[in-house]
Amino acid sequence: MDRTASRPRKADAIFSATLALLAERGYDALTVEAVAARAGVHKTTIYRTWATKDEVLADALVQAPELAFAIPDTGSLRGDLLELAKQIHRLLSDPANRRVITAVVSALPDRPATAEAAGRFFADRLGREQAVFDRALDRGELAGDADSEMIMDLLGGNLWFHTLIRAKSADDAYLERLVDTVLTGVS
Amino acid sequence: MDRTASRPRKADAIFSATLALLAERGYDALTVEAVAARAGVHKTTIYRTWATKDEVLADALVQAPELAFAIPDTGSLRGDLLELAKQIHRLLSDPANRRVITAVVSALPDRPATAEAAGRFFADRLGREQAVFDRALDRGELAGDADSEMIMDLLGGNLWFHTLIRAKSADDAYLERLVDTVLTGVS
Repeated sequence: MDRTASRPRKADAIFSATLALLAERGYDALTVEAVAARAGVHKTTIYRTWATKDEVLADALVQAPELAFAIPDTGSLRGDLLELAKQIHRLLSDPANRRVITAVVSALPDRPATAEAAGRFFADRLGREQAVFDRALDRGELAGDADSEMIMDLLGGNLWFHTLIRAKSADDAYLERLVDTVLTGVS
Repeated sequence: MDRTASRPRKADAIFSATLALLAERGYDALTVEAVAARAGVHKTTIYRTWATKDEVLADALVQAPELAFAIPDTGSLRGDLLELAKQIHRLLSDPANRRVITAVVSALPDRPATAEAAGRFFADRLGREQAVFDRALDRGELAGDADSEMIMDLLGGNLWFHTLIRAKSADDAYLERLVDTVLTGVS
Protein backbone atom coordinates (compact mmCIF):
# COMPACT_ATOMS: atom_id res chain seq x y z
CA MET A 1 0.00 0.00 0.00
CA ASP A 2 1.41 3.39 -0.93
CA ARG A 3 1.02 5.69 2.03
CA THR A 4 3.37 8.36 0.72
CA ALA A 5 0.51 10.67 -0.17
CA SER A 6 -0.78 10.60 3.39
CA ARG A 7 2.64 10.56 5.08
CA PRO A 8 2.06 12.30 8.40
CA ARG A 9 4.18 15.06 9.82
CA LYS A 10 6.89 13.64 12.05
CA ALA A 11 6.90 10.37 10.12
CA ASP A 12 10.67 9.98 10.60
CA ALA A 13 10.27 10.47 14.36
CA ILE A 14 7.50 7.84 14.38
CA PHE A 15 9.65 5.37 12.42
CA SER A 16 12.72 5.93 14.60
CA ALA A 17 10.60 5.54 17.75
CA THR A 18 9.17 2.29 16.39
CA LEU A 19 12.60 0.79 15.73
CA ALA A 20 14.04 2.06 19.02
CA LEU A 21 11.19 0.54 21.03
CA LEU A 22 11.43 -2.72 19.12
CA ALA A 23 15.17 -2.88 19.82
CA GLU A 24 14.77 -2.04 23.50
CA ARG A 25 11.67 -4.01 24.46
CA GLY A 26 11.00 -6.56 21.73
CA TYR A 27 8.02 -7.16 19.48
CA ASP A 28 5.40 -8.06 22.07
CA ALA A 29 5.93 -4.84 24.03
CA LEU A 30 5.72 -2.68 20.91
CA THR A 31 2.44 -0.74 20.95
CA VAL A 32 1.08 2.22 19.02
CA GLU A 33 0.65 4.05 22.33
CA ALA A 34 4.33 3.59 23.22
CA VAL A 35 5.41 4.71 19.74
CA ALA A 36 3.26 7.84 20.02
CA ALA A 37 4.68 8.73 23.44
CA ARG A 38 8.28 8.19 22.27
CA ALA A 39 7.78 10.17 19.06
CA GLY A 40 5.98 13.00 20.86
CA VAL A 41 2.75 12.74 18.85
CA HIS A 42 -0.81 11.91 19.81
CA LYS A 43 -1.72 8.33 19.05
CA THR A 44 -4.58 9.48 16.80
CA THR A 45 -1.88 10.98 14.54
CA ILE A 46 -0.57 7.45 14.04
CA TYR A 47 -3.98 5.83 13.71
CA ARG A 48 -4.98 8.29 10.97
CA THR A 49 -2.31 6.66 8.73
CA TRP A 50 -1.72 3.19 10.14
CA ALA A 51 -4.38 0.82 11.48
CA THR A 52 -2.02 -1.49 13.42
CA LYS A 53 1.47 -1.61 14.86
CA ASP A 54 2.49 -4.01 12.08
CA GLU A 55 1.56 -1.41 9.47
CA VAL A 56 3.71 1.21 11.24
CA LEU A 57 6.50 -1.37 11.51
CA ALA A 58 6.30 -2.24 7.81
CA ASP A 59 6.73 1.40 6.79
CA ALA A 60 9.38 1.98 9.46
CA LEU A 61 11.50 -0.88 8.11
CA VAL A 62 11.31 0.49 4.57
CA GLN A 63 11.60 4.21 5.32
CA ALA A 64 13.46 4.72 8.61
CA PRO A 65 16.73 6.64 8.21
CA GLU A 66 18.48 4.02 10.42
CA LEU A 67 18.04 1.35 7.76
CA ALA A 68 18.58 3.52 4.69
CA PHE A 69 21.10 2.30 2.14
CA ALA A 70 22.58 3.54 -1.12
CA ILE A 71 22.64 1.61 -4.38
CA PRO A 72 26.28 1.45 -5.50
CA ASP A 73 27.42 2.13 -9.07
CA THR A 74 31.15 1.43 -9.10
CA GLY A 75 31.36 0.37 -12.75
CA SER A 76 31.72 -3.36 -12.13
CA LEU A 77 29.53 -6.14 -10.70
CA ARG A 78 32.33 -7.15 -8.34
CA GLY A 79 32.67 -3.59 -7.06
CA ASP A 80 28.93 -3.17 -6.63
CA LEU A 81 28.47 -6.51 -4.82
CA LEU A 82 31.38 -5.64 -2.53
CA GLU A 83 29.71 -2.33 -1.66
CA LEU A 84 26.40 -4.08 -1.00
CA ALA A 85 28.16 -6.67 1.19
CA LYS A 86 29.86 -3.87 3.15
CA GLN A 87 26.53 -2.11 3.68
CA ILE A 88 24.83 -5.32 4.87
CA HIS A 89 27.75 -5.98 7.20
CA ARG A 90 27.61 -2.44 8.62
CA LEU A 91 23.89 -2.76 9.17
CA LEU A 92 24.30 -6.13 10.94
CA SER A 93 27.17 -4.77 13.06
CA ASP A 94 25.02 -2.11 14.75
CA PRO A 95 23.71 -3.48 18.08
CA ALA A 96 20.38 -1.62 17.80
CA ASN A 97 19.83 -2.96 14.28
CA ARG A 98 20.67 -6.49 15.46
CA ARG A 99 17.94 -6.23 18.09
CA VAL A 100 15.46 -4.93 15.50
CA ILE A 101 16.30 -7.80 13.17
CA THR A 102 16.08 -10.51 15.79
CA ALA A 103 12.84 -9.04 17.19
CA VAL A 104 11.30 -9.12 13.71
CA VAL A 105 12.60 -12.64 13.03
CA SER A 106 11.20 -13.90 16.32
CA ALA A 107 7.73 -12.62 15.34
CA LEU A 108 7.79 -14.24 11.89
CA PRO A 109 6.42 -17.78 12.42
CA ASP A 110 3.15 -16.82 14.12
CA ARG A 111 2.36 -13.30 12.94
CA PRO A 112 1.51 -13.04 9.25
CA ALA A 113 1.33 -9.21 9.38
CA THR A 114 4.92 -9.05 10.66
CA ALA A 115 6.04 -11.55 8.06
CA GLU A 116 4.42 -9.32 5.45
CA ALA A 117 6.25 -6.28 6.87
CA ALA A 118 9.57 -8.09 6.66
CA GLY A 119 8.70 -9.29 3.17
CA ARG A 120 7.96 -5.72 2.04
CA PHE A 121 11.28 -4.55 3.47
CA PHE A 122 13.28 -7.12 1.52
CA ALA A 123 11.19 -6.75 -1.64
CA ASP A 124 11.79 -2.99 -1.53
CA ARG A 125 15.55 -3.51 -1.18
CA LEU A 126 15.66 -6.07 -3.96
CA GLY A 127 13.69 -3.78 -6.25
CA ARG A 128 16.32 -1.08 -5.83
CA GLU A 129 19.27 -3.51 -5.96
CA GLN A 130 17.99 -4.76 -9.31
CA ALA A 131 19.75 -1.79 -10.98
CA VAL A 132 23.10 -3.36 -10.04
CA PHE A 133 22.18 -6.58 -11.83
CA ASP A 134 20.66 -4.83 -14.84
CA ARG A 135 23.88 -2.89 -15.38
CA ALA A 136 25.96 -6.08 -14.94
CA LEU A 137 23.82 -7.81 -17.57
CA ASP A 138 24.36 -4.87 -19.95
CA ARG A 139 28.11 -5.11 -19.38
CA GLY A 140 28.05 -8.88 -20.00
CA GLU A 141 29.25 -9.66 -16.47
CA LEU A 142 26.30 -11.82 -15.50
CA ALA A 143 24.80 -14.98 -16.97
CA GLY A 144 21.48 -14.17 -18.66
CA ASP A 145 19.54 -16.51 -16.40
CA ALA A 146 21.14 -15.17 -13.21
CA ASP A 147 18.69 -14.76 -10.32
CA SER A 148 19.25 -11.48 -8.47
CA GLU A 149 17.18 -12.59 -5.49
CA MET A 150 19.21 -15.78 -5.12
CA ILE A 151 22.44 -13.78 -5.32
CA MET A 152 21.33 -11.27 -2.65
CA ASP A 153 20.13 -14.13 -0.42
CA LEU A 154 23.55 -15.77 -0.79
CA LEU A 155 25.36 -12.56 0.23
CA GLY A 156 22.92 -11.48 2.91
CA GLY A 157 22.31 -15.01 4.21
CA ASN A 158 26.02 -15.75 4.53
CA LEU A 159 26.57 -12.51 6.45
CA TRP A 160 23.63 -13.24 8.77
CA PHE A 161 25.08 -16.62 9.66
CA HIS A 162 28.63 -15.33 9.93
CA THR A 163 27.92 -12.25 12.05
CA LEU A 164 24.64 -12.92 13.87
CA ILE A 165 24.82 -16.65 14.53
CA ARG A 166 28.53 -17.44 14.56
CA ALA A 167 29.16 -13.99 16.10
CA LYS A 168 32.24 -13.51 13.92
CA SER A 169 33.46 -10.26 12.46
CA ALA A 170 33.90 -9.85 8.71
CA ASP A 171 36.85 -7.74 7.61
CA ASP A 172 37.30 -6.46 4.06
CA ALA A 173 39.31 -9.56 3.13
CA TYR A 174 36.38 -11.79 4.21
CA LEU A 175 33.88 -9.70 2.23
CA GLU A 176 36.09 -9.86 -0.88
CA ARG A 177 36.40 -13.66 -0.57
CA LEU A 178 32.64 -13.89 -0.13
CA VAL A 179 31.91 -11.82 -3.25
CA ASP A 180 34.51 -13.71 -5.29
CA THR A 181 33.01 -17.03 -4.18
CA VAL A 182 29.54 -15.91 -5.29
CA LEU A 183 30.95 -14.66 -8.60
CA THR A 184 33.09 -17.66 -9.54
CA GLY A 185 31.97 -20.56 -7.34
CA VAL A 186 33.92 -23.05 -5.25
CA SER A 187 34.64 -25.84 -7.73
CA MET B 1 32.07 -29.35 27.66
CA ASP B 2 31.63 -33.09 27.14
CA ARG B 3 28.71 -34.22 29.23
CA THR B 4 28.37 -37.59 27.51
CA ALA B 5 29.88 -39.42 30.47
CA SER B 6 27.24 -38.02 32.81
CA ARG B 7 24.34 -38.14 30.35
CA PRO B 8 21.30 -38.63 32.56
CA ARG B 9 18.62 -41.20 32.04
CA LYS B 10 15.79 -39.75 29.98
CA ALA B 11 18.13 -37.29 28.27
CA ASP B 12 16.20 -37.56 25.00
CA ALA B 13 12.94 -36.77 26.82
CA ILE B 14 14.60 -33.75 28.47
CA PHE B 15 15.93 -32.50 25.13
CA SER B 16 12.60 -32.96 23.36
CA ALA B 17 10.78 -31.21 26.21
CA THR B 18 13.25 -28.30 26.02
CA LEU B 19 12.68 -27.81 22.28
CA ALA B 20 8.90 -28.27 22.55
CA LEU B 21 8.63 -25.67 25.33
CA LEU B 22 10.87 -23.27 23.44
CA ALA B 23 8.71 -23.66 20.34
CA GLU B 24 5.46 -23.22 22.23
CA ARG B 25 6.33 -20.46 24.70
CA GLY B 26 9.52 -18.79 23.57
CA TYR B 27 12.89 -18.35 25.22
CA ASP B 28 11.89 -16.20 28.19
CA ALA B 29 9.28 -18.69 29.37
CA LEU B 30 11.70 -21.61 29.12
CA THR B 31 12.65 -22.76 32.66
CA VAL B 32 14.35 -25.83 34.09
CA GLU B 33 11.21 -26.43 36.19
CA ALA B 34 8.98 -26.47 33.10
CA VAL B 35 11.37 -28.78 31.25
CA ALA B 36 11.41 -31.19 34.22
CA ALA B 37 7.60 -31.24 34.43
CA ARG B 38 7.23 -31.83 30.69
CA ALA B 39 9.88 -34.55 30.60
CA GLY B 40 8.49 -36.28 33.69
CA VAL B 41 11.67 -36.01 35.76
CA HIS B 42 12.49 -34.22 38.99
CA LYS B 43 14.27 -30.94 38.44
CA THR B 44 17.23 -32.13 40.53
CA THR B 45 17.80 -34.75 37.81
CA ILE B 46 18.38 -31.90 35.38
CA TYR B 47 20.44 -29.79 37.79
CA ARG B 48 22.79 -32.71 38.46
CA THR B 49 23.98 -32.42 34.83
CA TRP B 50 23.18 -28.87 33.74
CA ALA B 51 23.58 -25.72 35.82
CA THR B 52 21.34 -23.46 33.72
CA LYS B 53 18.63 -23.60 31.08
CA ASP B 54 21.14 -22.43 28.48
CA GLU B 55 23.31 -25.48 29.19
CA VAL B 56 20.31 -27.79 28.68
CA LEU B 57 19.41 -25.87 25.53
CA ALA B 58 22.94 -26.14 24.13
CA ASP B 59 22.95 -29.93 24.51
CA ALA B 60 19.34 -30.18 23.28
CA LEU B 61 20.22 -28.35 20.06
CA VAL B 62 23.16 -30.66 19.40
CA GLN B 63 21.63 -33.96 20.55
CA ALA B 64 17.83 -33.80 20.22
CA PRO B 65 16.42 -36.36 17.77
CA GLU B 66 14.25 -33.60 16.21
CA LEU B 67 17.33 -31.81 14.84
CA ALA B 68 19.38 -34.89 13.95
CA PHE B 69 20.81 -35.03 10.45
CA ALA B 70 22.83 -37.48 8.38
CA ILE B 71 26.08 -36.69 6.58
CA PRO B 72 25.57 -37.62 2.93
CA ASP B 73 28.11 -39.56 0.88
CA THR B 74 26.71 -39.68 -2.66
CA GLY B 75 30.07 -39.86 -4.44
CA SER B 76 30.12 -36.26 -5.69
CA LEU B 77 30.33 -32.82 -4.11
CA ARG B 78 27.26 -31.72 -6.05
CA GLY B 79 25.25 -34.70 -4.83
CA ASP B 80 26.38 -34.20 -1.23
CA LEU B 81 25.64 -30.45 -1.22
CA LEU B 82 22.22 -31.13 -2.72
CA GLU B 83 21.48 -33.62 0.08
CA LEU B 84 22.65 -31.12 2.70
CA ALA B 85 20.48 -28.40 1.11
CA LYS B 86 17.47 -30.73 1.16
CA GLN B 87 18.05 -31.54 4.83
CA ILE B 88 18.36 -27.86 5.76
CA HIS B 89 15.20 -27.10 3.80
CA ARG B 90 13.29 -29.93 5.51
CA LEU B 91 14.43 -28.71 8.90
CA LEU B 92 13.37 -25.12 8.13
CA SER B 93 10.02 -26.31 6.76
CA ASP B 94 8.89 -27.85 10.04
CA PRO B 95 6.77 -25.32 11.98
CA ALA B 96 8.05 -26.48 15.38
CA ASN B 97 11.66 -26.19 14.23
CA ARG B 98 10.97 -22.71 12.84
CA ARG B 99 9.76 -21.60 16.26
CA VAL B 100 12.82 -23.12 17.94
CA ILE B 101 15.09 -21.34 15.48
CA THR B 102 13.43 -17.95 15.76
CA ALA B 103 13.26 -18.25 19.57
CA VAL B 104 16.99 -18.92 19.69
CA VAL B 105 17.75 -16.13 17.21
CA SER B 106 15.69 -13.65 19.21
CA ALA B 107 17.74 -14.44 22.33
CA LEU B 108 21.11 -14.01 20.59
CA PRO B 109 21.92 -10.28 20.89
CA ASP B 110 21.60 -10.01 24.66
CA ARG B 111 22.27 -13.46 26.03
CA PRO B 112 25.85 -14.68 25.59
CA ALA B 113 25.03 -18.15 26.96
CA THR B 114 22.37 -18.64 24.28
CA ALA B 115 24.71 -17.33 21.61
CA GLU B 116 27.24 -19.89 22.83
CA ALA B 117 24.61 -22.64 22.62
CA ALA B 118 23.76 -21.68 19.05
CA GLY B 119 27.46 -21.45 18.25
CA ARG B 120 28.05 -24.96 19.59
CA PHE B 121 25.15 -26.29 17.50
CA PHE B 122 26.55 -24.88 14.26
CA ALA B 123 30.15 -25.78 15.11
CA ASP B 124 29.05 -29.37 15.77
CA ARG B 125 27.25 -29.53 12.40
CA LEU B 126 30.18 -28.00 10.54
CA GLY B 127 32.57 -30.45 12.17
CA ARG B 128 30.55 -33.36 10.82
CA GLU B 129 29.92 -31.73 7.43
CA GLN B 130 33.68 -31.34 7.00
CA ALA B 131 33.81 -34.97 5.78
CA VAL B 132 31.88 -33.89 2.66
CA PHE B 133 34.50 -31.26 1.86
CA ASP B 134 37.47 -33.51 2.68
CA ARG B 135 36.18 -36.12 0.23
CA ALA B 136 35.56 -33.45 -2.42
CA LEU B 137 39.14 -32.21 -1.98
CA ASP B 138 40.44 -35.78 -2.39
CA ARG B 139 38.40 -36.14 -5.59
CA GLY B 140 39.73 -32.80 -6.90
CA GLU B 141 36.25 -31.24 -6.97
CA LEU B 142 37.06 -28.34 -4.69
CA ALA B 143 39.64 -25.56 -4.83
CA GLY B 144 42.39 -26.16 -2.24
CA ASP B 145 41.65 -22.91 -0.44
CA ALA B 146 37.89 -23.48 -0.33
CA ASP B 147 36.29 -22.50 2.96
CA SER B 148 33.75 -25.09 4.11
CA GLU B 149 32.23 -22.71 6.66
CA MET B 150 31.67 -20.05 4.01
CA ILE B 151 30.08 -22.64 1.70
CA MET B 152 27.69 -23.92 4.39
CA ASP B 153 26.80 -20.32 5.36
CA LEU B 154 26.00 -19.61 1.70
CA LEU B 155 23.71 -22.64 1.44
CA GLY B 156 22.14 -22.32 4.87
CA GLY B 157 21.96 -18.52 4.77
CA ASN B 158 20.25 -18.49 1.39
CA LEU B 159 17.67 -21.01 2.56
CA TRP B 160 17.01 -19.03 5.76
CA PHE B 161 16.29 -15.91 3.75
CA HIS B 162 14.30 -17.73 1.11
CA THR B 163 12.11 -19.80 3.42
CA LEU B 164 12.01 -17.97 6.75
CA ILE B 165 12.09 -14.33 5.67
CA ARG B 166 10.66 -14.34 2.16
CA ALA B 167 8.34 -17.20 3.20
CA LYS B 168 8.89 -18.94 -0.13
CA SER B 169 9.02 -22.66 -0.72
CA ALA B 170 12.05 -24.27 -2.31
CA ASP B 171 11.37 -27.18 -4.64
CA ASP B 172 14.06 -29.55 -5.90
CA ALA B 173 14.66 -27.33 -8.94
CA TYR B 174 15.39 -24.35 -6.67
CA LEU B 175 17.75 -26.40 -4.51
CA GLU B 176 19.61 -27.66 -7.61
CA ARG B 177 19.99 -24.10 -8.94
CA LEU B 178 21.23 -22.98 -5.53
CA VAL B 179 23.87 -25.72 -5.34
CA ASP B 180 24.96 -25.12 -8.95
CA THR B 181 25.29 -21.39 -8.25
CA VAL B 182 27.49 -22.06 -5.22
CA LEU B 183 29.57 -24.53 -7.25
CA THR B 184 30.11 -22.46 -10.39
CA GLY B 185 29.21 -18.86 -9.52
CA VAL B 186 27.07 -16.29 -11.29
CA SER B 187 29.52 -14.60 -13.64
